[in-house]
Amino acid sequence: MGNCWQSLGPQKNTYMRLSLPAVCFVWQIAMIILFGVFIRYDKESDAHWAEHKKAENLTDIDNEFYFRYPSFQDVHVMIFVGFGFLMTFLKRYSYGGVGFNFLIASFGLQWALLMQGWFHSLDLTTGKIYIGIESLINADFCCAGSLIAFGALLGKVSPVQLMVVTLFGVTLFAVEEYIILDLLHCRDSGGSMVIHCFGGYYGLAISWVLYRPNLHQSKRLQGSNYQSDLFAMIGTLFLWMFWPSFNSAITDRGDGQHRTVINTYIALASSVLTAYAMSSLFQKRGKLDMVHIQNASLAGAVAMGTAAEFMITPYGSLIVGFFMGIISTFGYVFVTPFLERSLKLQDTCGVHNLHAVPGMLGGFIGAIVAATATEEVYSKEGLIHVFDKEGKFADRSMGTQGGYQAAGTCVSIAFGLIGGVIVGLILKIPIWGDTADDHCFDDEAYWELPEEEEETLSPVLEYNNHMSHKGQDITESSFTVEQF
Amino acid sequence: MGNCWQSLGPQKNTYMRLSLPAVCFVWQIAMIILFGVFIRYDKESDAHWAEHKKAENLTDIDNEFYFRYPSFQDVHVMIFVGFGFLMTFLKRYSYGGVGFNFLIASFGLQWALLMQGWFHSLDLTTGKIYIGIESLINADFCCAGSLIAFGALLGKVSPVQLMVVTLFGVTLFAVEEYIILDLLHCRDSGGSMVIHCFGGYYGLAISWVLYRPNLHQSKRLQGSNYQSDLFAMIGTLFLWMFWPSFNSAITDRGDGQHRTVINTYIALASSVLTAYAMSSLFQKRGKLDMVHIQNASLAGAVAMGTAAEFMITPYGSLIVGFFMGIISTFGYVFVTPFLERSLKLQDTCGVHNLHAVPGMLGGFIGAIVAATATEEVYSKEGLIHVFDKEGKFADRSMGTQGGYQAAGTCVSIAFGLIGGVIVGLILKIPIWGDTADDHCFDDEAYWELPEEEEETLSPVLEYNNHMSHKGQDITESSFTVEQF
Amino acid sequence: MGNCWQSLGPQKNTYMRLSLPAVCFVWQIAMIILFGVFIRYDKESDAHWAEHKKAENLTDIDNEFYFRYPSFQDVHVMIFVGFGFLMTFLKRYSYGGVGFNFLIASFGLQWALLMQGWFHSLDLTTGKIYIGIESLINADFCCAGSLIAFGALLGKVSPVQLMVVTLFGVTLFAVEEYIILDLLHCRDSGGSMVIHCFGGYYGLAISWVLYRPNLHQSKRLQGSNYQSDLFAMIGTLFLWMFWPSFNSAITDRGDGQHRTVINTYIALASSVLTAYAMSSLFQKRGKLDMVHIQNASLAGAVAMGTAAEFMITPYGSLIVGFFMGIISTFGYVFVTPFLERSLKLQDTCGVHNLHAVPGMLGGFIGAIVAATATEEVYSKEGLIHVFDKEGKFADRSMGTQGGYQAAGTCVSIAFGLIGGVIVGLILKIPIWGDTADDHCFDDEAYWELPEEEEETLSPVLEYNNHMSHKGQDITESSFTVEQF
Repeated sequence: MGNCWQSLGPQKNTYMRLSLPAVCFVWQIAMIILFGVFIRYDKESDAHWAEHKKAENLTDIDNEFYFRYPSFQDVHVMIFVGFGFLMTFLKRYSYGGVGFNFLIASFGLQWALLMQGWFHSLDLTTGKIYIGIESLINADFCCAGSLIAFGALLGKVSPVQLMVVTLFGVTLFAVEEYIILDLLHCRDSGGSMVIHCFGGYYGLAISWVLYRPNLHQSKRLQGSNYQSDLFAMIGTLFLWMFWPSFNSAITDRGDGQHRTVINTYIALASSVLTAYAMSSLFQKRGKLDMVHIQNASLAGAVAMGTAAEFMITPYGSLIVGFFMGIISTFGYVFVTPFLERSLKLQDTCGVHNLHAVPGMLGGFIGAIVAATATEEVYSKEGLIHVFDKEGKFADRSMGTQGGYQAAGTCVSIAFGLIGGVIVGLILKIPIWGDTADDHCFDDEAYWELPEEEEETLSPVLEYNNHMSHKGQDITESSFTVEQF
Repeated sequence: MGNCWQSLGPQKNTYMRLSLPAVCFVWQIAMIILFGVFIRYDKESDAHWAEHKKAENLTDIDNEFYFRYPSFQDVHVMIFVGFGFLMTFLKRYSYGGVGFNFLIASFGLQWALLMQGWFHSLDLTTGKIYIGIESLINADFCCAGSLIAFGALLGKVSPVQLMVVTLFGVTLFAVEEYIILDLLHCRDSGGSMVIHCFGGYYGLAISWVLYRPNLHQSKRLQGSNYQSDLFAMIGTLFLWMFWPSFNSAITDRGDGQHRTVINTYIALASSVLTAYAMSSLFQKRGKLDMVHIQNASLAGAVAMGTAAEFMITPYGSLIVGFFMGIISTFGYVFVTPFLERSLKLQDTCGVHNLHAVPGMLGGFIGAIVAATATEEVYSKEGLIHVFDKEGKFADRSMGTQGGYQAAGTCVSIAFGLIGGVIVGLILKIPIWGDTADDHCFDDEAYWELPEEEEETLSPVLEYNNHMSHKGQDITESSFTVEQF
Repeated sequence: MGNCWQSLGPQKNTYMRLSLPAVCFVWQIAMIILFGVFIRYDKESDAHWAEHKKAENLTDIDNEFYFRYPSFQDVHVMIFVGFGFLMTFLKRYSYGGVGFNFLIASFGLQWALLMQGWFHSLDLTTGKIYIGIESLINADFCCAGSLIAFGALLGKVSPVQLMVVTLFGVTLFAVEEYIILDLLHCRDSGGSMVIHCFGGYYGLAISWVLYRPNLHQSKRLQGSNYQSDLFAMIGTLFLWMFWPSFNSAITDRGDGQHRTVINTYIALASSVLTAYAMSSLFQKRGKLDMVHIQNASLAGAVAMGTAAEFMITPYGSLIVGFFMGIISTFGYVFVTPFLERSLKLQDTCGVHNLHAVPGMLGGFIGAIVAATATEEVYSKEGLIHVFDKEGKFADRSMGTQGGYQAAGTCVSIAFGLIGGVIVGLILKIPIWGDTADDHCFDDEAYWELPEEEEETLSPVLEYNNHMSHKGQDITESSFTVEQF
């Protein structure tokens, strides 16, 4: 049996005993050096706070920490348990799903603290980046872009490739975020544009370049089983429940966070109903499909990433969720297979339907809601506050703001597509230890699997073999018994 | 094998390709319209907050959001992961457990925002309902009533029936809550009465009307397996850990939330010990039963839903937990089988023992603690604060308050039982697509199951079949053995 | 089949129908009495808060509750889901892992409220202990020590023994904590010394005394399977994500909590990379091992338990995480097998590598960082604040403080080792109902397992049997078939 398994086993090019440790060590040491040179505590996390507080007549509760920490922890759960477990749905790639997610997010957030620091909060007088709780939230956000891309690549790339995807993904993210939020002065607190739209197209473009014509050889592993779908539901639910925190984590204090939570909560509820409805409607037998439930029920929140902090109204949020549940399920049923057939685009988790399209639409929804904002609805101060109409942007009209929001969406798509193609080409260099086409979606390639596992599964695998090639395997199976 | 499966397969009346999408779409569109007409942001989540804050000399930290949001997120986790995964314990109904929980809670919370809004916070001058973070918590609470009822019905009803259960459940909840909290002026922050007692009896009454005489035909599926019990423990633990947030989410700021957390934490710890003790004691072999651990360990918190915000004292909380662990485990061992035999009452999750009885007792415990409250223990202001002795209730004596609390409990039971019978009769109309008696507790009826799954399970099913029809399958089994 | 199972079944000395309920009931009643005598609400959770607030001119947001509650809930999740699910990794001891964790933590936290109360917050004028949210956090922390010890004993002791381990563990904890924090005036907010170092050595010493020479007879069960490793990842991730809350839960308000979170977050990220690197490097085939991922990725946070609240700098945190990931993985690969061979020390979860050593190192790291603290870095007030330089400790130099921190670490080791040996000897008395050597790591001994389960597993077990005793079991297996 063991032999049989090994003969099917991964090719030796998945050997990563040199490459993975090398990458991890070199990059981690680089992080230590760069952190040493650049990163310091900000005013609110430095021990000088005691004096600063007195000087500014503040109390401890004014520390930014108390406004952001609960949201931060929710976001943190989404990144590691949410994304991680959502990707355990494949029956034999659950370790890879949750484990590689853990690895690349842990690297990504370090690199994000640096990249976002350089672009957003480098103090030019001291040459230092000062970090606080909001930096941690942003670092988690920044990782999310690369984790979304991982969704499109799940099961088809090596951990070293994923580290490369993350290195470039975080870098590209920091640049596009700088352009969209700082130069174009868009609002995008929940990242419809900068996170989901970018991350989705980034992953799709990489996957398109890395097209595997013979992926069907791994067909047997490209599905779920009863348990793995339940594990994936853990991911789905933690994403779903904590998405109000995701969208509100860095919005304005007070009404900003409050309103964002309400809007996201409402949009999500609406998505669930239409996702279930469409899932049943698209099936000949009217049964629900776990893939749709796990993913499309989240689409409403993705599309609210920009608009949730605006006065989109509760029923506006319901409407967004309503259509996103429909569009996303439709995507899973029709668009993903179409993309694979026609565009040679293999998208394991369907990030096209959960992130790319809802993120893009979310960007445009945000543009429309921004363009139609009025002083009557927001109040004079509210409008200034929500759209940060200060300094040189004080006089920008709301119509113009809407135009910039739309432009921002296009920037994120462009960064995703172009960046993804370039990174895809880099990953095509045959040094990264990815598996052969017939061994995708298999943890065997990169993980020590529990020994007993092979035996537990073998009767079943045997069984399956029996079912598919009945007649001829009597000899084979008796051979198996003899082996023991 | 496949054929064999299909011949056992669900009857065609479980076909829900028309009914489920129709219900979801129609109701979701109704929600959009009603939200459009009625629901607006409240003062603290509206962009006018910036001006309001200035006018009232407030700072951002005074926004209700910061007092409630961490508790809200915990409650949210309880509703979706807690209740959801607690109901995955059946070996072949885990998708239904977590998936239908997701569906009906998502619908229920929308309808709850409206129903509770009309009853509690409709502004008669504008005709609008203004929502904020506390509305979201209450909406989640309101769903909990219907999710508890789902526990009694688990595996025996169709998703469309569950939507009906939720529609009426939320409606009844809003009315009884209005009577108990507003008219009778009871305190019930954690909902022993309005949530658990009502929800429990509501579910039991529905289940009683829907009695299935031949349910034993699904006996083979009416149990757990090793994995499904572990998934259920995820639900149990998230409920257990976050119950202090559940009971304290809408109590008074400051000492109210603080004390409620302490009392609930303590009562829960005590429940666990007596649940384990009784579980072992009631078994001939002294072994622990996962059903008791998963459920009875939570009973202390249910029974503290009313009294936790009072000065019940830490040891009082321990005593409540102590007895609830005993009573609840006793219920699982003796009462549930008795109810099924004698009252024709089938209660899949044993909500009688976890919600109905502990909720009812919690109502009466609250009544006693309220009746014995004194100014000495609470302080003059404390008493006013805790029991909301204001306006026309300022002069109500504590004894009277206790009487009203007890009356409130009776109201919740009455609403549960009468409402449940009516809803049960509605659900008996044979248009809802429920399964036949021999196909309860089977995800096959409503879910696309992973294909491989059937094969994985089949050897086991084969095996089980062997056990039931002994004699005749010697040939068959030798055939099986030969196959290997 | 059933017979066959029973003949392999646990010896009758695992019968705990009398002992477990007796211990649970007697101890729980003792708790009720002691709580009645000693425990009261503190000023901020008592209904008198309304008056106290007015007298002191406070507002509700000044209530300690709002500074600590989100962290408390995260810690609570770590104790019950984190530790609980981390210990589900054994293929047939998952119930015991999560279930006994639940039991002993629930008992331990009650006893901890008393023990810590007597040592830290007994009001000598009233003879009462006043508890608030910080007491709950400390009680959870106190349990953690015993849960760590459980990790070393997992699968080898009875639940009654675990109750004894917890009773003494909590007692010892309260004493060593009093010595370290109060008498030596050390800082140890995240408990590198008092929790991890103590708990680790306590568990190791017990395990050493309880050495089972024939444990290899349970070899077949001393491993994971594919599902159980995924369940364990739930535990790992919740520990990992919420560790910033663990370390910061009781640090100073404001910058103290803020900085601790940042440092822990950074150290954890760094641990992950080196844990992955070493895991791959130490394997001949370069594959990742789930045991390392589940555990070593956490080591950075354990070692930051003391220093995280100091100004260790972000890159200092990275460096700590870097080396801890390496040391911990090294421990799993080389030290644990060495300890078992040479020192007769069986350590199921490898707490040596995750708690004992990183905790000890964390204590010394804390000592060094404390000794090198300067007014320049901390500011004058910051230094006083962070190191609590008040009263008779106002003039202690930082070098001296460092010395005391190091001494504290030694105290925790001594308490762990000596206490563990004594408790181990108590547990050797043959009245506690532990299993025989050939039935360790088996839930069968203490849990009612789902009936179907036996059948599901039996074909596999059969299969395994075939593998080990080839020739002779042809008859046995045909016997099995006939049984059905």
